[in-house]
Amino acid sequence: MSDIRSPTVTPAVRRTWVAELSRSPGSIVRVSGFVETIRDQKRMQFLVLRDRTGAVQLTHEKASDGEIAERIAALTPGSAISTTGRVVDAEQVKLGGIELIIEAIEIASIADSPLPIAADSALEKQIDWRQISLRNPKEFLTFAVQTTLEHAMREFWRAERFVEIHSPKLMGTFSESGAEAFKVKYFDDRSAYLAQSPQFYKQMAMAAGFERVFEIGPAFRAEPSFTTRHGTEFTSVYMELSWIDSHDDVMQMEERWLAHSLAAVAAERGADIKRLLGVQVSIPAIPFPRVTFAEARSIVQEAGLLLPKADDLGPEGERALSAYFAAQYGHEFVFVTDYPASGRAFYHMRHDDRPDMTKGFDLLWNGLEVTTGAQREHRYDRLMQQAIERGYALESLRSYLEFFRYGCPPHGGAGIGLGRLLMIMLGRQSIREVTLVSRTPTRLHS
Amino acid sequence: MSDIRSPTVTPAVRRTWVAELSRSPGSIVRVSGFVETIRDQKRMQFLVLRDRTGAVQLTHEKASDGEIAERIAALTPGSAISTTGRVVDAEQVKLGGIELIIEAIEIASIADSPLPIAADSALEKQIDWRQISLRNPKEFLTFAVQTTLEHAMREFWRAERFVEIHSPKLMGTFSESGAEAFKVKYFDDRSAYLAQSPQFYKQMAMAAGFERVFEIGPAFRAEPSFTTRHGTEFTSVYMELSWIDSHDDVMQMEERWLAHSLAAVAAERGADIKRLLGVQVSIPAIPFPRVTFAEARSIVQEAGLLLPKADDLGPEGERALSAYFAAQYGHEFVFVTDYPASGRAFYHMRHDDRPDMTKGFDLLWNGLEVTTGAQREHRYDRLMQQAIERGYALESLRSYLEFFRYGCPPHGGAGIGLGRLLMIMLGRQSIREVTLVSRTPTRLHS
Repeated sequence: MSDIRSPTVTPAVRRTWVAELSRSPGSIVRVSGFVETIRDQKRMQFLVLRDRTGAVQLTHEKASDGEIAERIAALTPGSAISTTGRVVDAEQVKLGGIELIIEAIEIASIADSPLPIAADSALEKQIDWRQISLRNPKEFLTFAVQTTLEHAMREFWRAERFVEIHSPKLMGTFSESGAEAFKVKYFDDRSAYLAQSPQFYKQMAMAAGFERVFEIGPAFRAEPSFTTRHGTEFTSVYMELSWIDSHDDVMQMEERWLAHSLAAVAAERGADIKRLLGVQVSIPAIPFPRVTFAEARSIVQEAGLLLPKADDLGPEGERALSAYFAAQYGHEFVFVTDYPASGRAFYHMRHDDRPDMTKGFDLLWNGLEVTTGAQREHRYDRLMQQAIERGYALESLRSYLEFFRYGCPPHGGAGIGLGRLLMIMLGRQSIREVTLVSRTPTRLHS
Repeated sequence: MSDIRSPTVTPAVRRTWVAELSRSPGSIVRVSGFVETIRDQKRMQFLVLRDRTGAVQLTHEKASDGEIAERIAALTPGSAISTTGRVVDAEQVKLGGIELIIEAIEIASIADSPLPIAADSALEKQIDWRQISLRNPKEFLTFAVQTTLEHAMREFWRAERFVEIHSPKLMGTFSESGAEAFKVKYFDDRSAYLAQSPQFYKQMAMAAGFERVFEIGPAFRAEPSFTTRHGTEFTSVYMELSWIDSHDDVMQMEERWLAHSLAAVAAERGADIKRLLGVQVSIPAIPFPRVTFAEARSIVQEAGLLLPKADDLGPEGERALSAYFAAQYGHEFVFVTDYPASGRAFYHMRHDDRPDMTKGFDLLWNGLEVTTGAQREHRYDRLMQQAIERGYALESLRSYLEFFRYGCPPHGGAGIGLGRLLMIMLGRQSIREVTLVSRTPTRLHS
């Protein structure tokens, strides 16, 4: 029947990843990737071709095929090619002791020359030319690690019967603070706001009886901030769980989840991370240390630091606290619990006997905050009260407050910045190095 | 050391899911969930409690404990409670032939009464009160299926060495058509646009040598559309792969991926889907039928339908085509290939011998388009040419075009609407039924 065509036949020689070439001495293979270097000599031509798994030398004797010689002569660094050839042992070649004798070459695309950046260009230029800088094996590794990390997180959640949700990013109101919400022109000249977190909707899912949910997705902050650890858009990781007895149930879930995920990264990518980035991924012991906010302030003060306002530790305080726990207990992580209500979102639950103190926590990793979490106030009357005390116009919170009016289990959760996790885990200096395409107040193009 | 507190002790009786109660006759258990019905009789009180796994009858003899009796009397439908009690066999009880004799009850939250919707309320009201309507086991199942489906998709990608990416949703320009892009107020009175797809950035990842990427995330369309299959925000599923020989390589990857994912849903959730929604999930045979656009138009015309403009089949045509392939070949899917260039994005690759015909395809499932895919034009000069022919201002496409200037492998990919997949798979009537919180031109609140 001519209507239904069978799939196109794949080429006679299937493509082989460079990393697998050493298994095929003597055989004819096809490799595909970018031209990294070109040496066009009197009699011989040498190319280094790189794909995401490694680099290999390709060799051609000009006299053997003039047409191939011409094609090679036309190549520039960065060009994308496929070559077919025979794998031979070549002890003199530093790249794995093998080379490929070219028998055919197809040019997919010739790169403009010269390339606008080199391996040692400044970070800002690397970020400007992401399509080139990400070809560096070190940069590719970051996203291979991201893939492993997210997979491990979801495996854990799946075993714990969490449900995956996708909450809307367009909102009729803002979920955290209006000053930091991006405004969108919606239909009929209305305004929408970009979600600063999935907070409201993961709580809605608790009221709907989903019990355990997670979401990995974008979050947006219109913050004119230029630090190494902020973007205006970032990938957030959120989980929320019901029928908890306190915020400690959330912390227990989170520490098991993190230990599982880091163990998976160490097992699957640890050797590559060590080799390319010189960093050892360590698997944290459970339970993580916990310290109350009040105790944390004492520790920071004893370390001789001046503390910022009464409801915060500040970046320096967080670094000092982590240093203390690393020195005293050999642990990279520390939960700081029971923050003052004044510094936390209105929906964090308060202690019954200390209404000025929340059941909220942060998680620090090597001195940097990676998580904010809490048990939430699930009781409609108290939640409304807390919103009023904070000076919110209840009308703007109407649809959120309604979530709690028709029954809601006790619940809590945590939000984690994926970029911060990767940045700390891989020992990188800026969140922009671990972000595919960064967004800052001045950067809207790649 | 008092600084580090050990995790809170969990309650003496751990919570049991309702579905697991029948395994525990005679034992003391704790169940948590929503009160579904209340019968407060002279001597006895009966509650039906539901969690996301099922419903169970709770029974209390008033005389045995006056305080518990009072608490039960205060309950309303929808209230969230935890109860501890003894599981006993009770043949007369329709809910699984067991009941739980209440020994303690904790009220987490009392629901306002009456609830604003019932199980038979109209769809619009169900959507207005998502926190209540999603408690229906049928609705929860949708998101359990979503979880299974996405996990299976990612398992497939992982085995095929795809890399997970998160592309920015804030863009300096629009990726598809300006008329359908939401405008965001950015810093310094600049404008940003919300990504209509991750198209540009998954192609950037190809230029960066990532070779195989996927992303599941939000996409935004400022389309004033009110059909059952559109939203202004939706969850898109994207994959892109390099070193392909034609768009058929993309189709081969996609059909294997879909067959794997549907098989996983059938295995894990098939029985529940059959029981609650009356739908049989079938696993499609590979390869899916393929038909060129030109052949498809002939089939639709022979079915007696008037065709819309020359570069489209139209919704009716798509339904007729699917009906034809279901009748002739017993297949729910059909790839329509080689669409005319006039109706496709400028970056779809053209056939060398037919510059008016693209290497683009759609995938129809039971009459509805679920995928648009193509081999992309990866050659800088030709891509620029195609953009110019379409009348684009090159300046607005500058950062996109730059992706292809420094070498890029041949590549292609596909975009799939997650909601449409779920809607068809579960036999639902509207995409809003399978979306956690819908966004339409008139709906910005939950």
